[in-house]
Amino acid sequence: MQSFELLSQQFALHFDRRHFPEEPASLYEPNEYFLKLGGKRIRPVLCLMGNELFEDIKGDAWHVGTAIELFHNFTLIHDDIMDKAPLRRGMETVHTKYGESTALLAGDVMLVTAYEELNKISIEYLQSILFLFNKTAKEVCEGQQMDMDFEKMNAVSLDAYLKMIELKTSVALAASLQTGAIIGGAGERNQHLLYDFGKKLGIAFQVQDDYLDAFGDPKKFGKQVGGDILANKKTFLLLHAFEMATAAQRAELDQLLAHNDADKVQRVLDIYRDCKVDEWAVELKNKYLDEALSHLEDIAVLSKRKEPLKELAQFLIKREH
Amino acid sequence: MQSFELLSQQFALHFDRRHFPEEPASLYEPNEYFLKLGGKRIRPVLCLMGNELFEDIKGDAWHVGTAIELFHNFTLIHDDIMDKAPLRRGMETVHTKYGESTALLAGDVMLVTAYEELNKISIEYLQSILFLFNKTAKEVCEGQQMDMDFEKMNAVSLDAYLKMIELKTSVALAASLQTGAIIGGAGERNQHLLYDFGKKLGIAFQVQDDYLDAFGDPKKFGKQVGGDILANKKTFLLLHAFEMATAAQRAELDQLLAHNDADKVQRVLDIYRDCKVDEWAVELKNKYLDEALSHLEDIAVLSKRKEPLKELAQFLIKREH
Repeated sequence: MQSFELLSQQFALHFDRRHFPEEPASLYEPNEYFLKLGGKRIRPVLCLMGNELFEDIKGDAWHVGTAIELFHNFTLIHDDIMDKAPLRRGMETVHTKYGESTALLAGDVMLVTAYEELNKISIEYLQSILFLFNKTAKEVCEGQQMDMDFEKMNAVSLDAYLKMIELKTSVALAASLQTGAIIGGAGERNQHLLYDFGKKLGIAFQVQDDYLDAFGDPKKFGKQVGGDILANKKTFLLLHAFEMATAAQRAELDQLLAHNDADKVQRVLDIYRDCKVDEWAVELKNKYLDEALSHLEDIAVLSKRKEPLKELAQFLIKREH
Repeated sequence: MQSFELLSQQFALHFDRRHFPEEPASLYEPNEYFLKLGGKRIRPVLCLMGNELFEDIKGDAWHVGTAIELFHNFTLIHDDIMDKAPLRRGMETVHTKYGESTALLAGDVMLVTAYEELNKISIEYLQSILFLFNKTAKEVCEGQQMDMDFEKMNAVSLDAYLKMIELKTSVALAASLQTGAIIGGAGERNQHLLYDFGKKLGIAFQVQDDYLDAFGDPKKFGKQVGGDILANKKTFLLLHAFEMATAAQRAELDQLLAHNDADKVQRVLDIYRDCKVDEWAVELKNKYLDEALSHLEDIAVLSKRKEPLKELAQFLIKREH
């Protein structure tokens, strides 16, 4: 069994090639440009790890991993259009560089190319992997739509937010692992346990992301602390603060969200601390991490095989008390 | 064997149902709205006819037909965004009614749903139909990109325009027929002959469309004559006129295109007639129709089975001398 890091290096090498025809260059050059911006390639590596949890990695896992990564990049190109994001990884987004129409079409053809890659796998599990891939792709679209809907709403319940995070982020991680498990010959029960591991891990990661944006050490976190607060982004923290705030705190929060005063971040953080949102978020994160690890525990393979996934979980989610 | 009309009625009944989940309604209601706008459903019926050319229609042809129609509607939703079209079939386009971001996402999920429908067919030909479907989907995207590129170019060769029409329009008709042939158990040679029949028929249809826009009887044609000329659209006619025009005619054409004078349509038509573009277009259309029919002729099945496709070709393309 290989670590996430080792497989990540191998996948990066595997993926670093042309994925599109030369012509028409006006359509395919934007795609090649975007793939060259790089990325952590987490999802395809999860597919490889899902395979290796049960058996040596088969050639088909590389095809499925590639398809998953192309799918992920399709969602990024289109999300960037919807979010009107000028930059990704410090470089121009596709629609900024090539125009919205080309970005739209480049995303479309990226998705079709993902299906082309999927169709290279053995007929033995084509149907089951295609089924999971389609289901997940639909869910990711649903999550993105919910995210856009929430932006326009004043009140969003924590349950609804959790559902959105599951759809937009977690199911893709879960499904990546499960496709690998299918290729590795896992039975249905093991497949579903691994799926649930990925789903819970994804939620824990999002809780951590929301937490670090507010309470992280700016030096370690690598981005501006309080960015979500400045953008009035609905996060686990803000939604829980709404639930816990007294009438006076709620009024102050509403007031802070309505303006962008210089001390906005500091004052929102004060309310978060008063409402113990920070402690709650750490507990929530640990709860999902524990649930994830318990699903992994229940998978019926030698525990030695689980080590790389356990390490990855601990690496992604730093336990805090 | 059943006529296009009969199969068309049956497919309309089959397709007239909900295709998407209820929730999130903000994503799926736009899709249901768009499908309810209707359409001629030509492509799925071609799939049914391609099947029936060789054998009784199998259940899988309905799945593939549905997938093809969903794919077609995906392209329409996204094309409408790119073309900034306010209306389709006299009703608001998806992006006009629901906003661009939702239209983008609604199109994406329409495409994924097409693949879901495809994955319902027998494993026996899943791989070959998926291969053809993916190849065609990519070509349609390429054709749309070329079309957008051409809009910004001054000079487009007739060959390049023909290639664009093939990709944007013809290959989808050709592939619809071929998927049916695959399900009908046709051999490779017959499949390819049927594909070529569809491709040539599609080009003939586009030549006719360009011709009627300029020279059609406004009463019969059902839309404003000269619309393409007013919009400076690159068509078979304009590109051939560029090839045939004398220096003086070319100068006049350029002058006419640069302005929208009241007599623009009339004067462009005069040049077309002087250059015999009208006769050339009729010949070109007949040439492609004849080639299409000759491919159909070559298919090794009883000629009685070919009657519905022959009738359809004659119905779509009115022979003119």
